[in-house]
Amino acid sequence: MSNDSVNGCLYVGLIHFPVVNKAGETIGSAVTNLDLHDIARASRTFGVSNYFVITPYEEQRELVSEILAHWLSGSGGKANPDRREALSLIRICADFQEAIEQIEKKHGKEVLLIATCAGHQENTVTYQYVNEMLAVGKPVFILFGTAWGLAPELLNRVEGVLPPIIGSGGYNHLSVRSAVSIVLDRLRRIETI
Amino acid sequence: MSNDSVNGCLYVGLIHFPVVNKAGETIGSAVTNLDLHDIARASRTFGVSNYFVITPYEEQRELVSEILAHWLSGSGGKANPDRREALSLIRICADFQEAIEQIEKKHGKEVLLIATCAGHQENTVTYQYVNEMLAVGKPVFILFGTAWGLAPELLNRVEGVLPPIIGSGGYNHLSVRSAVSIVLDRLRRIETI
Repeated sequence: MSNDSVNGCLYVGLIHFPVVNKAGETIGSAVTNLDLHDIARASRTFGVSNYFVITPYEEQRELVSEILAHWLSGSGGKANPDRREALSLIRICADFQEAIEQIEKKHGKEVLLIATCAGHQENTVTYQYVNEMLAVGKPVFILFGTAWGLAPELLNRVEGVLPPIIGSGGYNHLSVRSAVSIVLDRLRRIETI
Repeated sequence: MSNDSVNGCLYVGLIHFPVVNKAGETIGSAVTNLDLHDIARASRTFGVSNYFVITPYEEQRELVSEILAHWLSGSGGKANPDRREALSLIRICADFQEAIEQIEKKHGKEVLLIATCAGHQENTVTYQYVNEMLAVGKPVFILFGTAWGLAPELLNRVEGVLPPIIGSGGYNHLSVRSAVSIVLDRLRRIETI
């Protein structure tokens, strides 16, 4: 499979609600500036079509808009066009349903909704499966959670969950920025594995 | 090769001088708080023994010490022991020679000095080679550059440079946090490739 087949079909979403806190309670988290930059740069590197920043809080969406304006049409983008190119992939949505509608409208077909989780889930799907879907032109939307990860009500709504990133031991507290980077790299490289 | 053989031999260094700016001039960069957290968490996940934060600026080293005190012995570590566990891997050094001496003293043997770069270098080494060295108990120290990457004088001093992280096109502007995460994951997974 050529990696070019990924292009145009792969989408990433960063969820700020519903996610869980350390105690496992469902909460909403605040947008982090570096999540915008790092995940947009990784998305641009690995051929993601759009990176959806998803928060129900209007003030937070306005904050993201202001940051993006600086980089897309303001002085930030003029000084650093590479950063502008990455951040231009960002779309701001109030919930993931809104993002799904945008993707399905663009492709005219149903999206495959995939989640990520630091723990093993019953409905695990492989990287190989996701790549096969991309190869046949299926739009794939991969959701990542901020805070302590995606809430169970969301994990139960998706069609599959990618396996947790296992390192050399039981420690599973990567930043979401690291997790997105590794997942995108694994998808890109799966053809050689 | 079992991944456990990596344990105890792998070290990561984040260089703040000498690095280059956008114009290719050698500069010193400022320490970023999230570089400490994200790279420590990735290091802990993938069995890195120590993560060296390297800056010649004394005030910057003091700043890192204060941040670490909050997480190692202050309220941060009490509230979040997982974060303390990750940040406990950090060592602060004025230059990479100081880090090399610490590693070589601990192992009683010469360290293999490896760099990373967003561009292709003449002295490229493979992930396979690095893993073979780890497998025979050779301490390996992988250097990452902040700003626009490691300065040429440093790239020329190392024994090898890992290949650049290529995504789906020519865009090569990952954050150093993403780059470290991907490199450590690739090293961890190379045995299956």
